[in-house]
Amino acid sequence: SRLRLSGLCFLLQTLTILLFAAFVRFGPDSSPGLCSQPLNCSQRNQDSGSQHPRFRDVYLQTLLGFGFLMAFLSRYGPGSVAISILVVAFAIQWAVLLQGFLHQFWNGKIHMGAQSMVRADSGAAAALISTGAVLGRVNPAQTLLLTLLGVTLFTLNEYTLLSLLGVSDSGGSVTVHTFGAYFGLMVSRTLHQPHREQWEEQQGTGQQPDVFAAVGTLCLWIFWPSFTSTTTAHSSAEPWVVLNTYFSMAASTMATFILSPLLYEESTLRMVQIQDATVAGAAVMGMAGEMLVTPFGALIAGFLAGLIPPLGFRFLTPFLRSRLKIQDTCGVHNVHGLPGVLGALLGTLLAALATADAYGGRLELVFPLVARGSRTRTEQTLLQLSALPLSLLLAALGGCLTGVVLRMKGLRSAPANRYLQN
Amino acid sequence: SRLRLSGLCFLLQTLTILLFAAFVRFGPDSSPGLCSQPLNCSQRNQDSGSQHPRFRDVYLQTLLGFGFLMAFLSRYGPGSVAISILVVAFAIQWAVLLQGFLHQFWNGKIHMGAQSMVRADSGAAAALISTGAVLGRVNPAQTLLLTLLGVTLFTLNEYTLLSLLGVSDSGGSVTVHTFGAYFGLMVSRTLHQPHREQWEEQQGTGQQPDVFAAVGTLCLWIFWPSFTSTTTAHSSAEPWVVLNTYFSMAASTMATFILSPLLYEESTLRMVQIQDATVAGAAVMGMAGEMLVTPFGALIAGFLAGLIPPLGFRFLTPFLRSRLKIQDTCGVHNVHGLPGVLGALLGTLLAALATADAYGGRLELVFPLVARGSRTRTEQTLLQLSALPLSLLLAALGGCLTGVVLRMKGLRSAPANRYLQN
Amino acid sequence: SRLRLSGLCFLLQTLTILLFAAFVRFGPDSSPGLCSQPLNCSQRNQDSGSQHPRFRDVYLQTLLGFGFLMAFLSRYGPGSVAISILVVAFAIQWAVLLQGFLHQFWNGKIHMGAQSMVRADSGAAAALISTGAVLGRVNPAQTLLLTLLGVTLFTLNEYTLLSLLGVSDSGGSVTVHTFGAYFGLMVSRTLHQPHREQWEEQQGTGQQPDVFAAVGTLCLWIFWPSFTSTTTAHSSAEPWVVLNTYFSMAASTMATFILSPLLYEESTLRMVQIQDATVAGAAVMGMAGEMLVTPFGALIAGFLAGLIPPLGFRFLTPFLRSRLKIQDTCGVHNVHGLPGVLGALLGTLLAALATADAYGGRLELVFPLVARGSRTRTEQTLLQLSALPLSLLLAALGGCLTGVVLRMKGLRSAPANRYLQN
Repeated sequence: SRLRLSGLCFLLQTLTILLFAAFVRFGPDSSPGLCSQPLNCSQRNQDSGSQHPRFRDVYLQTLLGFGFLMAFLSRYGPGSVAISILVVAFAIQWAVLLQGFLHQFWNGKIHMGAQSMVRADSGAAAALISTGAVLGRVNPAQTLLLTLLGVTLFTLNEYTLLSLLGVSDSGGSVTVHTFGAYFGLMVSRTLHQPHREQWEEQQGTGQQPDVFAAVGTLCLWIFWPSFTSTTTAHSSAEPWVVLNTYFSMAASTMATFILSPLLYEESTLRMVQIQDATVAGAAVMGMAGEMLVTPFGALIAGFLAGLIPPLGFRFLTPFLRSRLKIQDTCGVHNVHGLPGVLGALLGTLLAALATADAYGGRLELVFPLVARGSRTRTEQTLLQLSALPLSLLLAALGGCLTGVVLRMKGLRSAPANRYLQN
Repeated sequence: SRLRLSGLCFLLQTLTILLFAAFVRFGPDSSPGLCSQPLNCSQRNQDSGSQHPRFRDVYLQTLLGFGFLMAFLSRYGPGSVAISILVVAFAIQWAVLLQGFLHQFWNGKIHMGAQSMVRADSGAAAALISTGAVLGRVNPAQTLLLTLLGVTLFTLNEYTLLSLLGVSDSGGSVTVHTFGAYFGLMVSRTLHQPHREQWEEQQGTGQQPDVFAAVGTLCLWIFWPSFTSTTTAHSSAEPWVVLNTYFSMAASTMATFILSPLLYEESTLRMVQIQDATVAGAAVMGMAGEMLVTPFGALIAGFLAGLIPPLGFRFLTPFLRSRLKIQDTCGVHNVHGLPGVLGALLGTLLAALATADAYGGRLELVFPLVARGSRTRTEQTLLQLSALPLSLLLAALGGCLTGVVLRMKGLRSAPANRYLQN
Repeated sequence: SRLRLSGLCFLLQTLTILLFAAFVRFGPDSSPGLCSQPLNCSQRNQDSGSQHPRFRDVYLQTLLGFGFLMAFLSRYGPGSVAISILVVAFAIQWAVLLQGFLHQFWNGKIHMGAQSMVRADSGAAAALISTGAVLGRVNPAQTLLLTLLGVTLFTLNEYTLLSLLGVSDSGGSVTVHTFGAYFGLMVSRTLHQPHREQWEEQQGTGQQPDVFAAVGTLCLWIFWPSFTSTTTAHSSAEPWVVLNTYFSMAASTMATFILSPLLYEESTLRMVQIQDATVAGAAVMGMAGEMLVTPFGALIAGFLAGLIPPLGFRFLTPFLRSRLKIQDTCGVHNVHGLPGVLGALLGTLLAALATADAYGGRLELVFPLVARGSRTRTEQTLLQLSALPLSLLLAALGGCLTGVVLRMKGLRSAPANRYLQN
C-alpha cells in the first residue's frame, strides 16, 4: 500500500519530465503576441503582446497566483496539508502541459511563460476543490489519480468555454468553483459505500483548525482579489475587479455574522465559518467582478453569497448526505458550488445589461468580441448562460467516470482517514 | 442577546448598501487629478494625476494595504480574530463612505478608487487598536458600535489634520496609533465597573498565542514598511521610508532583547513581546519615517521605541489599572499610544530642522507647502506640533462619549469574555 | 547569565548605531551607476543605473527579500523563533555595514539603497542556516556572536566570489546555502562535548511544528522564487529563474513523496519533510536557476534535490553524529548543504555548455563578462567550479575559529535548551 503511492508518484513524475523534455520550451523573451485560436486572440493578448509586459508585472503575477493557491491550500486542515501540496505539485505540472498543448503549441513545441504558470494555478485550484469533497475517504494514490483526471477535464472545459465560446469568466466562477465542486461531488457519490460506517465529518475539526483558518483567511484577503484580476490586467484601468472583490468579501463576512447566531446555538463564531464566507464572497465575484460597474452591486452580491455557507451547512449538507448519498467532507458545495452558480447567474445578467454607455472603454476589456462588433450583446449573453449547464454536464459525467476509476480493485483497499490523523 | 448582534449587523450592512447605492461610484479610469481641497492638492495628487498611475502600482497598494491590515489583525489572539474580522469588514465599508464624502465628493457622488481602499485601511487599523483596549470586556454588538463611532471620529480627525492643517503624517503616528490608542483607553475608562471582579488580563494568553504572534510578526515585517510608503510613493525617489522602518524595527527588536531579561524573571522571550517591539518600532516611524535622511536616526528612534513596551507592561499598565481605573487588555497604550507620541515629537523636531539643503528635491514630497513657499518652516513645525494635542483632545472627548453610548441599558447585559474562549 | 545577553545586545546595538552614524548615508535618489570594482560593474549595475529603477520595483524587492527571510525564519520551530528574529535583527544591520564598506563606499561614506537591504537579507539567511546546525546547544549570547562572525565571513566570501572572481550565483547556492551549512556544521563540530549527554534532536518536534512548517512552506512557495530573481531583474526578459524555481520545488516535493514511504514506517508524511523538500528544491536552483533554458532541466534538478533530504535524514545525519561527532539540529546539511553543492555542480556544468546560440540576448544577463568578450567560456566555467572549494575552505576555517570563540569560558556556561522550551 505504501509502495503504491511511491510507484504512482514516480510514474507520473517520470511521465511529466519526459513530456516536458519533448515538448515544453520557454517562450521567446518578447513574444510577438502569437495567437493560435482566432477567438481567444482578444484585446488582452494583443495588448500584452504589443506593449512588452514588464518583468516585474509578470512575476508579480506568479507571486499572486501562488499566493492565491497557497491561501486555498490552507483551507484543508492540518493533517491534509501534506496531501494538498502533493495535489498542487503535480497539478501545476500537468496543467502547464495540457493547457500548453491547447493554447501555446506551435512548431511542435509548447512555448510557455509566466502566464502559463498563473493559468495552471487555476487548474490546481479546481483540483483542490474537488479533493475537498472526498477528503479523508480516499487514499493519497486515489487523490493523485483524481487530480490527473480532474485537471484534464478542467482544461478541456476551460478551453471550450473561454477559447471556443468566448465566455468571460476571468475569476473562474464557473470554470474553477462550480466545475471543481460538482466534479468532486459526483466522485463522492460514485465512491459511496453503504456498508461502511458513517464517517464523522472532518470539516473544521482537528488540532489547530482555527490557526489554519485564520492564516488562510488572512492570505485570502491579501491575495485573492489581486489574483482574480491577473488575466484582465490593463495598464490604464482602475482595478474595479479588485475593489469589487474586497467589497464582496466584506459584505459576505457581515452576512455570516448575521446568520450564524440565528442558526447555531453557540454564540461564538468559528474562524472556519468566516473563512467559508470569505471564499464564498470571492467565488461569486469570479465572473461578475469585472462586469460590475458600481460598488454597491458587489456589496449585494457578496451579502447574498455570504448567506449560502451557513444555510448550506445547516440544511443542505445533511440532506445531501442522507438522501442523495453524497458526503461532502469540506462542504465544497456550500462554499464553492452554490456561490459559483450564483456568480454565473449574476454574470449572465450583467452581460445582458452591458451597454457601451455604461462600460465605456472598459467594454473592450470585458467583452472584447462585443466591443469589436463581431458578436452582439444577446449572443454574448446566451453564451454566458450556456457556460453553466455545459460545465455541470461535463463535471457530472467526468465525476462519474473518475469515481469508477477510483473504485478499481487495486486502489481502494487502503484505509483512508489515517492519512488525516497527524 | 444573540439576536442583537445579528440585528445590528443587518441594520448596519443594509444602511451601508443603501448609502453605497445612493452615493458611491467608481472613479473615472484616468482621473485628471481633481482636488476638492486646495491644501490637500499637493504634489502627491498632482503627481499621480499627471503620470497615469499604472494598474499594477494601484493594486500593489491595495495588496500591501490589506496585508498590513491582516498583519495587524493577528495581533489580537486566537479567540478574538473572528471579532476583529467583523471590525475590519464593517470599518472598511464605513471608512470608504465617510472619507469619500470628505475627499472625493463631487457632482453628488463619491468617486472612489484604489486609494480610497488604502485610506480606509487606516481607519480600520485605528478601530482595531481601539478595540484592543477593551477586548474581552465588551460584547460583539458593542464592538461594532465602537467601530462605527471610532471610524467616524478617526475620519474627522484625519481630515482636520492632513487636509485642513496640512500636517505630514503618512504612516499615521498621530492619526492612527495615538488616536486609536487613547480613544480606546478613554472608552475603557468610561466602561469601568468597580463592582465587577477584576478580569484577568488576556494579553498574549490563549491557546496558540505564539503561533499567532509569530505569523503576525512575519506579516508586519513583510508588509508594514511598504504600507507606510503607499501615500508617498514617488517614481524616482529611493524608498527611504521603507528602509527607515526596517531599521527602526530591527533596533526596536534589539532593545526588547536588552530590557526583557532585566525586567522579567524568565529568560525566554515570548513571541508576543517581539511582536510588540515590532509594532512599536513601526509606530514611531509613522510620521518621521519619510523625514529622516540618515539611517542611524531610524536606528536610534527604533531603539527608544523598543524600550517602551517592556517598561510599559512592567510599570505603566498596573499603574493605569489600579490608579486610573483604565484596563488595557492588549496593552495598546504601550504598543501604539506612547510610541505614536514619541513618533509625533520626533516628526515635529525633524520638521523644525527641515531645510532645502538636507532634503533636496525630496522636500517637495515631504512638505509640499513649504517647498512651494506657501508656508514657512516654522509654521509647518507649529502645525505638526499641534497635531498631537488636537488628536488627544478629540480622542478623549470621543472616547468618553462612545463609552457612554456603549453603557446604554440594552447593550451591556451580555457577558463578554466568553466571546474569547475558543 | 541573563545579563550577559542584555549586555551583549546593548554593546552590539550601540556599536552599530555609532558606525551607522559615522558612515552610512542614503544614496542619492538617482544614482549614476557608480562602480567601485571594475569586475563587478556588470550589465546589471549599468542597466539599473541607466534606466532609473522605478520606485515600485525597488520596494517590491525589499518586500520580497523580507518575505523570503521570514519564510526562512519559520523553519526553526516555535521556541526558536524569538532567537531567530534576534539573529535577523542584528544580521541585517551588520550586513548592511560590511557589504556597504565593500560595495558602496566612496567619499568616506556608505551610500546605501534598497539593494543593500536585499543583499543584507542573504547575509541574514546564511546566518540563520548556520544557527540551524547548533540550535538548542548554544545560548542566545553565543548565537549572537555566531551571527557576528558568520555574517562577516559570509560577506568576505560573497565579495570574493561575486565581485572579484565574477562568479554567477544569483540565488546563492554556494554563497548562502553551502557556505551557511558547512560553516554551521564546523561550529557544531568544534562545540562538541563528549561528556555531555546526547541531546535529543529537536528537528520537527515541539508544540505546533506542523503549523509552523505549513506556514513556512506557504511563504517559501510565494516568496522564494521571486527572491532568487531580484538581482537579475531585467525589464524585458521573461522570468525564467522564477519559473525554473517553481518547477524545481514541485518536482522536489514529488520526490519526497516517492522516497519517504520507502524509508519510514509511518505512511503519513509530516509537513516538515515537505518543507525540507521545498527548501532543497529552491537551494538547487540558486546558481543554475537563471542558466537553465528548458523547464525539464529544472524538473530533473529539483527531483534529484528532493531525494537528498529523506536519504540524508535517514542515513547521513546519524552517521555524522556518531562518527564525525557533528550534531546537526535542524539537518541543515541535508536541506541546504548537499542541495547547494548539487546546485553548484549543475551551475558549473551549465556554464560549460553556455553558448551564445542557446542563450541569445540572455547571455549578457547571466554571464556578462563572457558576453562582452572579456572572458572565455572556459575561464568562466573554471571560476564557477572554483567557487565551491573556496567557499568550503573558508566555511571550514571560519567555523573552527568561531567554534573556538564560542567555547570561551565566559560564554558557554548557560544551559542551552531551555531557550527552546516555550
